[in-house]
Amino acid sequence: MPKIYLDYAATTPIDPKVLKAMLPYLRKDFGNPSSIYYLGQKALGAVDEARKTVADFLGCDAGEIVFTGSATEANNLAIFGVIKTTKITKPHLITSQIEHHAVLEPCRELEKQGVEVTYLPVNKEGLVGLAEVKKAIKANTVLVSIMYANNEIGTIQPIAELSKLIKKTNPKILFHTDAVQAVNYLDCDVEKLGVDLFTLSSHKIYGPKGVGALFVKKGVSIAPLIRGGGHEAGLRSGTENVAGIVGLGAAIKEIQNPKHKIQNIGIRQLKDKLIKNILKLIPDANLNGSQEHRLPNNVNISFQGAEGEAMVIALDQKGIAASTGSACSSKSLEPSHVLLALGLSEEEAHGSLRITLGRPTCQEEIERFLKVLPPIIQRLRQISGYQL
Amino acid sequence: MPKIYLDYAATTPIDPKVLKAMLPYLRKDFGNPSSIYYLGQKALGAVDEARKTVADFLGCDAGEIVFTGSATEANNLAIFGVIKTTKITKPHLITSQIEHHAVLEPCRELEKQGVEVTYLPVNKEGLVGLAEVKKAIKANTVLVSIMYANNEIGTIQPIAELSKLIKKTNPKILFHTDAVQAVNYLDCDVEKLGVDLFTLSSHKIYGPKGVGALFVKKGVSIAPLIRGGGHEAGLRSGTENVAGIVGLGAAIKEIQNPKHKIQNIGIRQLKDKLIKNILKLIPDANLNGSQEHRLPNNVNISFQGAEGEAMVIALDQKGIAASTGSACSSKSLEPSHVLLALGLSEEEAHGSLRITLGRPTCQEEIERFLKVLPPIIQRLRQISGYQL
Repeated sequence: MPKIYLDYAATTPIDPKVLKAMLPYLRKDFGNPSSIYYLGQKALGAVDEARKTVADFLGCDAGEIVFTGSATEANNLAIFGVIKTTKITKPHLITSQIEHHAVLEPCRELEKQGVEVTYLPVNKEGLVGLAEVKKAIKANTVLVSIMYANNEIGTIQPIAELSKLIKKTNPKILFHTDAVQAVNYLDCDVEKLGVDLFTLSSHKIYGPKGVGALFVKKGVSIAPLIRGGGHEAGLRSGTENVAGIVGLGAAIKEIQNPKHKIQNIGIRQLKDKLIKNILKLIPDANLNGSQEHRLPNNVNISFQGAEGEAMVIALDQKGIAASTGSACSSKSLEPSHVLLALGLSEEEAHGSLRITLGRPTCQEEIERFLKVLPPIIQRLRQISGYQL
Repeated sequence: MPKIYLDYAATTPIDPKVLKAMLPYLRKDFGNPSSIYYLGQKALGAVDEARKTVADFLGCDAGEIVFTGSATEANNLAIFGVIKTTKITKPHLITSQIEHHAVLEPCRELEKQGVEVTYLPVNKEGLVGLAEVKKAIKANTVLVSIMYANNEIGTIQPIAELSKLIKKTNPKILFHTDAVQAVNYLDCDVEKLGVDLFTLSSHKIYGPKGVGALFVKKGVSIAPLIRGGGHEAGLRSGTENVAGIVGLGAAIKEIQNPKHKIQNIGIRQLKDKLIKNILKLIPDANLNGSQEHRLPNNVNISFQGAEGEAMVIALDQKGIAASTGSACSSKSLEPSHVLLALGLSEEEAHGSLRITLGRPTCQEEIERFLKVLPPIIQRLRQISGYQL
């Protein structure tokens, strides 16, 4: 039986068109973009073209794009980079309790260094409240970092409204969004969103692993994390990952392909079907996150009396790939910090399953999943002695 | 006429075997190594195998290898990472004047933060003196970072002797070497070398761009640069660049292929022929660096009365790729800091040409180069009005 992949929030396969665009730079066009001769300039041209593609997608200038080795690096560059250059003596930073570890860990490190950090709570749907943000802003606030869409529960934050509020309160406060999960589905015009810093990942959008990008609005001063030959306008030194960057550019181009925009409607329908049927077929199951403000590909459900990792393993035995939450912390035995922030108990948080759909997801896969899941939950509940 | 590439120190083409090893991870085996299901574990297995290959090559444990997004990042991680965790209040760091910018720039940044840095001079051949190192060591010295082989002039430093001296003076001092240019040609047993930290790059050894690695000896405490999901034992967060890491592993495997060891003898012979003939054919030309302690693939010659960038452009017009020095600073109009450290005048430093050979380099290419270069130098000297 063919395997079914339902963990597109963890990573995506490289689109064949993307790989095709990359291959010349893995073969004959191997020059170093810093070299002034033909082969080097050809590589530089490819990097520049990808930069333009990403910039056009975000509605910004090519000079505002910094390529990095991952979205994690881009988030670190944004957060550490802003704090490093601020002139405020004891700066304050606002983020949310449900950010990815790539935002939370830099914040925790900065706290150790004396930076003040507010971790905003979220409501039961995972939404950051405008009133909470307003209340949190202080005279020394220099940066707000709120993710565009959550990786575990798919909740979409009102980035444009948040920006308006922040900038109205104090236009000097910088606003960063980790948009890694949003790029496939949501409007990413940085001007409309009103953000100063915007993180994206290649491997979440059918591009290669090992590449990310950070939009840094003109005039925003950040310090580099990685220093050396002065690549990426001095903000990220190191020979450019040419093939990877070309892949990211090609992946961004594909997102704009009308075919995929239509496909996203189908993904949303399959997601709705999946949620509706799981909740119908399996008792004591609760959808985590928002119904309304939700990524079209995200399903996250807690099953009482069933343990998440056991579900993932049982599904894997049936050839289905799904996850308990973030791939990045799937080896951790800690319950999801995102689900705890929604108000779930540790037990409920441990009983969650994340199913994320992607371009190749089809009706048949969803139907098979709906056949396979209920007996798994039933069996796990028998083992745990859960009484319906 | 076929193009001739003679800039292997800038970057190398990916070996077809390396690309072949990478392709499955760019196609069907696209899982996230953090995912616990089959596809994720397959990716993790590939990363682990590459880690073991690199570790075996360096004679260390797999747990001592940290994969990064570039060698620049690995150098930054080593230097910032050590200084970040030291308990010494005003630490002192020793490096050399001829390091790559990926070492020098982190050092300069640390100086701004109050760290004391000694930039050791080198002799006319580019060698760091043991006596100078000994003299530079102070009670607060925590780290020495000396490159294994120089990227511009190919001078090989006596790493094992330096280590013995440093450790004898104070065994607590950590020793880092940027071995990016050495890995293709020199013994990289970290125990024999006596180093605590060792940087390597994938794209300099016929592997893909966008991957590097840092050996961190067990027990050596360093802080991460990039924080998040806790990948690479917490030392470098971010989803692993699986295909890139697999490529680095395959490239390391190829280095150990006896075929290439034999090939390296041929490279050395071609290099010797090139040096001998250039110096014979072109007057007022001087070899930069050491004859004896030199990488087998490096030629760096200063031509009086001829400008380096003009030579590179003229060679490019004849289909030959060579460089003035480091690719990473080839856009800079500054004379090479390496050549200045050797005692060359600014003018002499501006008149240098670096030719670096690689596996595909053949007799015919060297012969054609030797035909093409003399008239170029002659013409440039005419333009500059240089009198022989």
